[in-house]
Amino acid sequence: MKKLPLIFFILLIAFGCKPTSDKNYNTDIEQGTSTNQQEKINNFAIIIHGGAGTILKKNMSDEKEAEYAAKLEEAIKVGYTILKNGGTSQEAVMKTIQIMEESPLFNAGKGAVFTNEGSNELDASFMDGKTLNAGAVAGVTNVKSPIELAIKVMTDSDHVMLSGKGASIFAEEKGLEIVDPSYFFTERRFQSLQRIKDREKMELDHDDKTAAFYDADIKNAKFGTVGCVALDKNGNIAAGTSTGGMTNKRWGRIGDAPIIGSGTYANNKTCGVSSTGWGEYFIRNQVAYDISAQMEYKKIALKEATKDVIQNKLTALGGTGGVVALDKNGNMSFEFNTAGMYRASMNDKGELLVKIYKE
Amino acid sequence: MKKLPLIFFILLIAFGCKPTSDKNYNTDIEQGTSTNQQEKINNFAIIIHGGAGTILKKNMSDEKEAEYAAKLEEAIKVGYTILKNGGTSQEAVMKTIQIMEESPLFNAGKGAVFTNEGSNELDASFMDGKTLNAGAVAGVTNVKSPIELAIKVMTDSDHVMLSGKGASIFAEEKGLEIVDPSYFFTERRFQSLQRIKDREKMELDHDDKTAAFYDADIKNAKFGTVGCVALDKNGNIAAGTSTGGMTNKRWGRIGDAPIIGSGTYANNKTCGVSSTGWGEYFIRNQVAYDISAQMEYKKIALKEATKDVIQNKLTALGGTGGVVALDKNGNMSFEFNTAGMYRASMNDKGELLVKIYKE
Repeated sequence: MKKLPLIFFILLIAFGCKPTSDKNYNTDIEQGTSTNQQEKINNFAIIIHGGAGTILKKNMSDEKEAEYAAKLEEAIKVGYTILKNGGTSQEAVMKTIQIMEESPLFNAGKGAVFTNEGSNELDASFMDGKTLNAGAVAGVTNVKSPIELAIKVMTDSDHVMLSGKGASIFAEEKGLEIVDPSYFFTERRFQSLQRIKDREKMELDHDDKTAAFYDADIKNAKFGTVGCVALDKNGNIAAGTSTGGMTNKRWGRIGDAPIIGSGTYANNKTCGVSSTGWGEYFIRNQVAYDISAQMEYKKIALKEATKDVIQNKLTALGGTGGVVALDKNGNMSFEFNTAGMYRASMNDKGELLVKIYKE
Repeated sequence: MKKLPLIFFILLIAFGCKPTSDKNYNTDIEQGTSTNQQEKINNFAIIIHGGAGTILKKNMSDEKEAEYAAKLEEAIKVGYTILKNGGTSQEAVMKTIQIMEESPLFNAGKGAVFTNEGSNELDASFMDGKTLNAGAVAGVTNVKSPIELAIKVMTDSDHVMLSGKGASIFAEEKGLEIVDPSYFFTERRFQSLQRIKDREKMELDHDDKTAAFYDADIKNAKFGTVGCVALDKNGNIAAGTSTGGMTNKRWGRIGDAPIIGSGTYANNKTCGVSSTGWGEYFIRNQVAYDISAQMEYKKIALKEATKDVIQNKLTALGGTGGVVALDKNGNMSFEFNTAGMYRASMNDKGELLVKIYKE
């Protein structure tokens, strides 16, 4: 029987039952590092993104960089304060996202990109990790805060997802703030649409319809969604996402942002996730729910799950973008395969991280 | 070293690596019973549904029953013949669903239910298990075959999901058959809308808005979607779903049928699934993808996964409905928690099952 430990070890390896590694899964966020999913790292926590894409230091002025960093900080501190004072993760997510929706910097709310027809069509979704209830809206043109509307769909209707004019009628019935569609006009986004249309025309003239997909500018036209995930003191996780979609989108295109399981997912048993990126790939990969499913069924840590889904599975299909996520113990994870992602996090000790580029 | 086999066995048990069980998981479909996921049960196979709900023998005339059974048989035989002749699962799914879309019996295509405004808004989705590519449409009013349009979105656009008028414009551009919205008018569905509206008004008068949700007639207003999953001789799985949604739906409500991961999912590595039921719960439960995720991550058989998702997880939240699913080895599964589900399956030996009620 002296050989028992050796045999045990060999079989352990053979059956892939690796002993717990002491690797630091949360390399990205120093404030919440742990592989032990039983240990509460943060009593409450909040993490946000303002879009991922080809965001490079060389293309960014110091002023612009400071502007983004300041807005991310302003937004996350709103949610942090709510959580610190014992507020719900639902309120923290909504109020934090609303700060970003009201800023022209991000492709959501005020700063939404233009469709091919020159309008702004907004999408948003929200999920409550305690009840697994959810709300979403797609193609809304005159509601100031799409994230508020998504939450209203969850709380005040029997439905999960409403779309188009019907969603606006619902918003009016429920007393949400309605704005003239011109509220969403920003010169910067309008110019982006013109540039893309010019390029598209040029490509059509040269009979090369696919080139647009390999142009960084146009690729970035797919990005810029905002999102937030929060864990409150009662252990409830909430996640929300809001976007203007893809510049030059047509045919009533719906991306991943309003799709529960792709753009947004929350479950108190596992984690909350908000996605940003090339929506079509996030739908095909079931990005947000897949992170939760891997944690639940494979019993892996949050960071391991986000890494596999973004760096392996999404990348393998050719998709680009990222997620922010947190688990029930307050571990947090930023994960993206693009050059940058506007992002921030705060833990229960008030430690703030604001980042833009890949490290 | 004589004790080695014993030690091996003990460790096997200790680490939860159970030897393959000989339980018959597919109690539902005798023609494809196996838990051994390595063994090819059927070289090709096809399974369909025409909706789940409070379908009771006592409420069904013999004529009506025969009519449903005949249409299910007609539809599945179209797909079966395509597969038998070496056709793709994509074509089999499309052509099979089209037979049901063209029949007034099912809540899809021709037989679509009415919205609150008295119109018909159709949703559909399709997924290709080989490429994980997908297409979906929501809120289409004038395209004869929504499933064909969903496939066209997949094959002829860079998008996964299109909606509303934009989706119709895309359909016209691609040369799909456009019909006058009156094509979708059927007296039976129109009367259903009137009955539900009358009841709603009565309930409002009595200040009891929630009662409608506990009425079987109105509950069934949520059901009737059609769907198909097929495995072809090349081992490719495809899944599709098509629906008119929920009678009396309003506010541009989108259910699970056009949502990849909720209403439809296919992956050659695991399985293909088409859902039917109370869509909101299927979205919240991520029903279609969850079946695949459980097979992939928990290494369980198809039947075990469909059972857990429908009988445990969906039921726990209060959701009702069912799925048809098949795995890469041609095992098939019907699973539902309602009184009945219109359904049929055929294996590579040409054995046909057509069923309506719970067994």
